[in-house]
This record gives sequence, structure tokens and C-alpha cells, in this order.
Amino acid sequence: MSAFFAAHRGLLEAAVQAARTRGYWSAYPEAPSGKIYGETAKADGEAAFKALLGQPFPLDQQATTRVGRETSPYGFDLAITYPSAPVASLVAAAETAGAAWARASVEDRVGVALEILARLNRESFLIANMVQHTSGQAFMMAFQAGGPHAQDRGLEAVAYAYDEMAKIPGAVTWTKPAGKVNLVLDKQFRIVPRGVALVVGCATFPTWNSYPGLFASLVTGNPVIVKPHPGAILPLAETVRVARAVLAEAGFPADVVQLAADEADAPITKDLVLHPAVKIIDFTGSPAFGAWVRAHAEGRQVYTEEAGVNSIVIDGTDDFRGMTGNIAFSLSLYTGQMCTAPQNIFVPRAGIETPDGHKSFEAVADGIKVAVDRLLGDPERAAAVLGAVQSEATLARVDAAAAKGRVIRAAERIALPGYDGARAITPLILAADAADTADYTVECFGPVAYVIATDSTADSLARAAGTAREKGAITASLYATDPAVIDAAADAFAAAGVALSVNLTGQVFVNQSAAFSDYHVSGANPAGNASLTDTAFVAGRFRVATVRRQSAA
Amino acid sequence: MSAFFAAHRGLLEAAVQAARTRGYWSAYPEAPSGKIYGETAKADGEAAFKALLGQPFPLDQQATTRVGRETSPYGFDLAITYPSAPVASLVAAAETAGAAWARASVEDRVGVALEILARLNRESFLIANMVQHTSGQAFMMAFQAGGPHAQDRGLEAVAYAYDEMAKIPGAVTWTKPAGKVNLVLDKQFRIVPRGVALVVGCATFPTWNSYPGLFASLVTGNPVIVKPHPGAILPLAETVRVARAVLAEAGFPADVVQLAADEADAPITKDLVLHPAVKIIDFTGSPAFGAWVRAHAEGRQVYTEEAGVNSIVIDGTDDFRGMTGNIAFSLSLYTGQMCTAPQNIFVPRAGIETPDGHKSFEAVADGIKVAVDRLLGDPERAAAVLGAVQSEATLARVDAAAAKGRVIRAAERIALPGYDGARAITPLILAADAADTADYTVECFGPVAYVIATDSTADSLARAAGTAREKGAITASLYATDPAVIDAAADAFAAAGVALSVNLTGQVFVNQSAAFSDYHVSGANPAGNASLTDTAFVAGRFRVATVRRQSAA
Repeated sequence: MSAFFAAHRGLLEAAVQAARTRGYWSAYPEAPSGKIYGETAKADGEAAFKALLGQPFPLDQQATTRVGRETSPYGFDLAITYPSAPVASLVAAAETAGAAWARASVEDRVGVALEILARLNRESFLIANMVQHTSGQAFMMAFQAGGPHAQDRGLEAVAYAYDEMAKIPGAVTWTKPAGKVNLVLDKQFRIVPRGVALVVGCATFPTWNSYPGLFASLVTGNPVIVKPHPGAILPLAETVRVARAVLAEAGFPADVVQLAADEADAPITKDLVLHPAVKIIDFTGSPAFGAWVRAHAEGRQVYTEEAGVNSIVIDGTDDFRGMTGNIAFSLSLYTGQMCTAPQNIFVPRAGIETPDGHKSFEAVADGIKVAVDRLLGDPERAAAVLGAVQSEATLARVDAAAAKGRVIRAAERIALPGYDGARAITPLILAADAADTADYTVECFGPVAYVIATDSTADSLARAAGTAREKGAITASLYATDPAVIDAAADAFAAAGVALSVNLTGQVFVNQSAAFSDYHVSGANPAGNASLTDTAFVAGRFRVATVRRQSAA
Repeated sequence: MSAFFAAHRGLLEAAVQAARTRGYWSAYPEAPSGKIYGETAKADGEAAFKALLGQPFPLDQQATTRVGRETSPYGFDLAITYPSAPVASLVAAAETAGAAWARASVEDRVGVALEILARLNRESFLIANMVQHTSGQAFMMAFQAGGPHAQDRGLEAVAYAYDEMAKIPGAVTWTKPAGKVNLVLDKQFRIVPRGVALVVGCATFPTWNSYPGLFASLVTGNPVIVKPHPGAILPLAETVRVARAVLAEAGFPADVVQLAADEADAPITKDLVLHPAVKIIDFTGSPAFGAWVRAHAEGRQVYTEEAGVNSIVIDGTDDFRGMTGNIAFSLSLYTGQMCTAPQNIFVPRAGIETPDGHKSFEAVADGIKVAVDRLLGDPERAAAVLGAVQSEATLARVDAAAAKGRVIRAAERIALPGYDGARAITPLILAADAADTADYTVECFGPVAYVIATDSTADSLARAAGTAREKGAITASLYATDPAVIDAAADAFAAAGVALSVNLTGQVFVNQSAAFSDYHVSGANPAGNASLTDTAFVAGRFRVATVRRQSAA
């Protein structure tokens, strides 16, 4: 039991420290290297994944039936089924298991969570295959974002929650001077969980977006029901399998963590959200569903990441090729299916200044197109950057978008080497005018970018920040050499609650959000009502109950 | 500006430390002593109060008209009027002022808040008169709860918020090893406030219940509109006056804090709650209005203290006289108008054991009656303990309650020495059976107590904790000598989110909640959705916006 806590205590303390200093830190190596994960780890992970295909997934949970119709965006059916039980039965099992979990010490709960993360880390190659063949991410990204980076985000949530709980003393003596005598109370403070926690996952980042809520709710004493997207069940089913194994080993009921899988034509998320015993909801998904969840929260703690319209504002640069190359990568990475990917690129109608001289609006737009073409010119590299498209709906959105602006670069269906029938496409780049707000101020999830001609950089900033305030945004990017412009952008995007990146021309991209350093989502605009992860993300997941006993003076 | 921070920094650090260790600590002396507050402070405070009567209150705020019809529960009209302006104008002024306030440093904002508290402390005698003649509290309580204790709660909120904000580094360098080179980003983290904050006060504890939300929102950068109860405007008007004076001295717009007074027949609270710019709401009031506020929150941060049904469970005692005396005081203090006052006293039908031998149910009920009679037998002491009744409605509730059980002790109207026409009454004590749930499981705000015959202490605990879960409760009290019973009660009330006091027979009372030690309200049952004060109470009042700049490797 507490052996897990003892084993991982050093890591925990380093994580707590890292979250305070917020420099670069990572617990789980992101390199998919045999030297780190074992020389046979890659082959073993792939073999283990393949062995699961076409089989009932080995998850020992109550089931009245089995569900699951996942297909890989790389062109084949997973044909894996998962146990399914009525919502009321899942919640009842969570409540029963939760009673024992609530009585566990903070150290026991944290120890279990850290052991789960350690085992997930060891399985990173298996998880990578699972994430690749549900989300469509290319293998390298599926490994990193689905494995170590997601684990880092889970650990970060554990660190925040532990730090908050550790602040609360278990017992104190309260001695108040009252004239000749003292008034003395012996006080005990007890962490009280909120109730059943629900984690609603998404199809594009099934682990990365779910782990913060899952681990935050878990260590604060709440039993967790994990509801994966019907298109990306497998990575979370494996996560739940590992969690249940660790719980059982530690002497806790496995039902502290349960999977609630469903299929697209028989969804169960609303029933879970509305169950009166569900007290905490972590939701990643569309603004439409997010709005429904928030409207039906009724006193539940709800943490959402929904969607937004991310912008790049170009005022000028001292490295045009670096800038266009960096933007091209940001537009192409995972085919624009990241919540952090830019959509709108604001450029002054009159063009910009660069070390190579003045560049017209057209030249800037063309520079980005050329950079995308260059990046994706090699089919192997294109496949590694783009990966596959998770949903057929995204292809339809790209098709429809082509009519919404002047096409600078057309999207093209491409093949992914080694996979027949993969769903893959390159970015669509459109030119638009600032006046065409109906087109570009709406999120077009997928590889669609607008290069938008504005009156000035001030106009660009006002439009980019305004869209963020009204429609939400998680990231913004600025290219400028004038410090006054950088300051103005910093003010405008801070007021709109958007994380701003400035002058990225190298190997850091606006899409990337680093655990222990970046506050992913601000919670200050419609892109989400919470940050993953900060103190506010964890502090409301438990309460404190006090017992005061009168003591002799 | 930062001079305020420097002046109060030692106090702030002590407060942060106190909130972590949670032993006894207080910043502001609770003794209404001339040695502490100045030999003429008492007379000066009373004179200053009297000078305000019948006059426009000197608050330099925009006004289209003036409002105010407060009457003292001690029997006279205050006849003070306050500036009034349309809700939209107040909110617009808050937004304008808030822009400058958001740009202020954490230290500047915290310095202003601490200076406001220091000045309020110096005015404690004036505030005491103001609280006495709006809430009806007796002078000593009005001084302590309305002055130093309220100031302590305000300071506690500042300490929590400062601690959270201080955790976030202003700037860091993020250096990620990437093979031969490093990826380097210079990051800045900026505290971003949420928007306009609204504090809705109550009539019984106008300062104590408002200061946590007011100061928490203020130091996290949000402009605050203070909406007092129409029956208790004056103490918050004075608070706002002091706040505006300090803000102006520090070079900030006074409208960072505004008063929004109204009258009972033309209430403006709903308009304030519904204004789209209002993003944080602190509400103290009835569950009916609290439910309305929560239902209309739509993404706003809402922190409520509503109401509950507090219980005492008597299983046995080794000090019968101490127990009954302590309970008598808890029932009588401020005529039962405290959110922490007990209402239901559960006693086994078969009676209890005491050092004086077995006491029947009737003997226990009679013991409490006798103790109340003894406490209130002396008119001076009765006046000092009971104070006056804030609202006429409370008298009507007590009248109606008399029919809901067998009267053990009748309520009686009494005179308060020195005040003609004061509204004062002694507690009503009723006997009921556990089966009469329709009567006793409803909050009857005011001096009404039920002594309830149950099958056993297990039955008592189940009923008391069940009522807490369903109707809310802030406090519970237990008398028991058997450690197993104490443990069972600790479990039951912790699960119901209630703070439990055990075997209080001396000069500590279940009604009292100590700043820096007790978590007032758990947030885990319907008595309120938040604790005042803990980290969760402050952490959501701001967000973090990041700027990342690419740096040379």
C-alpha cells in the first residue's frame, strides 16, 4: 500500500517543485528509445496491440453486454469490444468502491496514482499504437503525446492535488488565551471527496486530455468513471485496466476506476452527466456538447476544454524563412487536429518588413504555402507530420471550407506509406479579408487556415483577441520585431485569456504545451472553463471536514 | 503604493503561516478595550455613529438618486440614505476602474487590501455601532464579530489569495535539451482577473460574511460591487468608503470598490447577478435566493453560504451542568440568528447516563430549559447575550413554531435595557418525536430548538447527518463519553460535510468559527457551495496568461 507512495515519493516531490519553478521538467522520457524502454519494447508494444485486435478487451468489469466499433484512421477496423453495463450500475459500483477509497490516506491514494502512471509509462509503446490507431496521430506523436506527455500531465495533476491536500494539517491543538485560562480545542481535519467523478474523453487526444481530470479526481478520493469517445476507447480502456490492477494490488476495490464505453448511435454521456451521484465532471469535446454539460451541471464541479479559434498575428520578422517554416509545421502537425493549432493568420493588407525587404500580403501568404509544400514534399516526412484524420467529418469540413475564401493552397488526399485506405489530407490555406468575419471567426476543426488581410497590426490584434474572447482560443502566436507591438499583443491576449507565443522560428511550435510549465487552457475564455492544470483545477475536488474536541485547559 | 505592502508585509506573512498551521491566531484584537483601541475610541465610535443618523451617508459615488430605509432592531430609524445609480452604470464604472486594477502588481493590490483592513480595524467601535443597529447583535458581539473577527476573515482571504498568486513565478526560462542544442523559451506568467465581482451581503452578519469574498476578489484583481442587504447597508457602506479612500490614496480609481444599495421593495440583486460583465458572485442569504443565483450563474464563479439545520446529538456526558449551560448559551447567543446555531437536539428516548445517574429524555430537555432560564434570568446579561431580533419575520416564525411541538420553554418578548421598542425575544424550546420530520428537518431561522426523542444514538446520528446532507448544515455538536460513539459521529458528519464539535462544556461554543483555523462552511452539503476560506475559495478568482518568447539557444 504505502509502499507505492514510498517508491514514488522522490518523483512526487520533484514534480511538486517543478510545478512551482515552471522551468523545463519531465518525469517520463519522450524519446521512443530502446535504451530507455527496453530493446524489444517497440516490437512488443506493436505485437501486444495486434493481439488485442478482433478480441474482447480483457477488462474485468461488470457487463450486461459488450460494445465497441472503433476503426483506425489508418484504414482498418479494430473490432475490439468492451464490457458495458447500465449507467446506474456503474455509478452504484463507483459509490460502493468510493466509500473505501475515501477512507484511504492521502499517501495511499497518491501512491496508487503514481504506480498507475509508472506502469502506463512502461507500456508507452503499446499505448502509442492504441493512440495512433484511434486518434490517427502519427506514431511518434502518438508515443509522445499519448504516452510520456500525457503521463506528465497526469503526474502534474497529482502533484497539484497532493500539494493542496498536504497543506491541510491532520490534527492541531488550538489554544486561545482567555484571561487566566486558555481555551483549548483538539482539532482534526479530514479530506472529504465530492462524490463520483466522470471523465469524458475526446477522440483526438484520448489520454493527454483525460489524465489530468482522472488523476486529480482519483487522488482527492473520488471514484472515477472514464467515458471515452466511442472512436477512441482503446487507450482509455488500457488505462483503466492498469488502474484497476494497481488498485486491487493495493487492497482497494477495482471499481474505484471504471470504463463506461459506448457506441456513437447509443451514447450514454448525458445519462452519466445527469446522474445525481456524479459530482465532478471533466469534459473534453465540442462547444455544443460542452454548453449542454455546463447548463446541466447544477452544482457539480465541471471542468471543460471545448474549442477555440487560434490566431497568428504577423507584424514583421527578422527570419522570414524560419517564420514560414514554423507556421507550416504548426498547420500541418497532426493535420491541424490539435486544440492548439492556429487557424487564422492576420497579416496587414500593406504587407510586412523583413530582412529580405518588404513582403506584400500575397508574398506572405505564398511564403506560408511554399513552406507547407516544402515540409510535405517528401511522402515519408508528410506521413510522419500529418498522421491520419480522425473523423470523416473533418474531411467534409475541409471540402466545404474551400468555398469560403480564395484558395492559396488546396488540400489534397494523400496516401500514407504502409497503410492502404488511410484517411489523410494536407492543409487547405485560404486568403480572406478582415471583413469576412462570418467565415474565419468560426472554428473549422481540421487543417484549414485563413490568411486574413487587415488594416494594420492593431486591427489584427483587435480581431484576434476579440475572436478569442467571443469564441475562445487556447493559443496565439505573434511575429514582430517592435517591442511596443509585442507589449501590445501581450496585453491584448492576456486580457483575452490566451497563451501567446512570440517569434517562434525554430523547433518550438505554438501547438505545444509543456507539462509543469505551460498552463494549458486559461479558463478565461470560451475555449474552456478551466486550466489543466493549476490549483483551481484540483482545489474544488475535495472538501475539509473538521472535528473539534474540547480539551483540558 | 507599495508602501502599504511594505507596511503590512509582516502581518501578511504571519497570516499565511497561521492559515497553514491552523492553531489559534488573530491579527486584530477582539477585546473592545481602550488600552488597545484608544481611551476615547468607544465614545468616539458611538458619537461618529450618531452623527451619521438622519443624514446622507458621505460616500462619493455616482448617484442618480438616494436610497435607504434601515431601522435599528433596537427600535429607531437610521434615516440614512446612500447614493444609488443604475446597475448598468455601476458595472460600467467597475469595468473602467477594473482595467487599471488588473494592471496593478499583486503586491500593490495586496497592500491596498491590508491597508483597508488596518483602517477598518481602527474604526472597530464605529463599525460595532453600525453592526449592532442593523443586525441587532448585542454590542460586544457586534464589536467582535462585526469588527476584528470579520477583519480576520478578510485577512485570511487575502493570505490565501496571496499565497496562491505568489506561487506563480512572474518569469522563467524554459530550457529543454534537444540533442546538441537546447530549446529555450523566456516565459512570463501574468495573473488575469475574471471580471466584475459581486458580493451580496446578509442582514445578520453584514461584514463577517462579506469580507472573505470582497477581499478575495479584490486582491486577485477584480473590481468589486458590494450589494448589502437593504436592512444592513451601513456597515458595508462604511467598508466601501474606507476602501475607496485607500484606493484613491494609492493612485487607483475609487470605483474599484462600489456600493450598490437598494430598498426591499425595489431590489437590484437579480439585475446585478444577471449582468454579463459580472463574473464572480459571493452570496450570503436564503437557500431560495441562493438556488436562484446558482441556477442563473451560467459560467460565473459562485460562492454561496445559504442555510442549514444544525444538530446536537446527546449520547451521554460527564458534565451535565456544563453541557446544558453550553447548549443554553448556543441557543441564546444573538437569539439563535447565527448560521452556526443549533436547532435540533437529538436525545435517546430512553435517556442518557451522567455522573449524577440516569437522566430521562424529559430530564435532559428540562435541564436545557433550566440552563436557558438561568442564563437569561438577569436582564442585563440576557440583553448582552440575546441582542435584538433583526427581522420582524423571525418573530412571526417563532410564533408559528410554537404549534409544532410540545412547548418545553416558551419564547417571551423582553425589553432591552436602554432601548425602548427593541425587538427582543428569548428562545423557544420544543419537544418532538423523531417521527415528526416535517417539523424539525426544515430550517426555522431564529431562536427555535427542538429536543427530539430518538430510538438510539445511532438513530440520532443518522437523522442529524441525513438532515445535513439533504438540507445542509454548518455545525454539529456531540456529547458522548464512549470513544466508539465519537468515532462514529466523526465519520457520519464528515461524510455529510459538517464541522463537528465534541463535548463542549466550557467557554467555547459550537456557534463560533475561528479564522485561520476553522473551515467555515464545508461546501460539501446544501448549506453552501464553498468554504470560507480555503484554497478553492480563492483559486478560481483569477487565471494565468502566459507569454512565451523564443530565445537564443
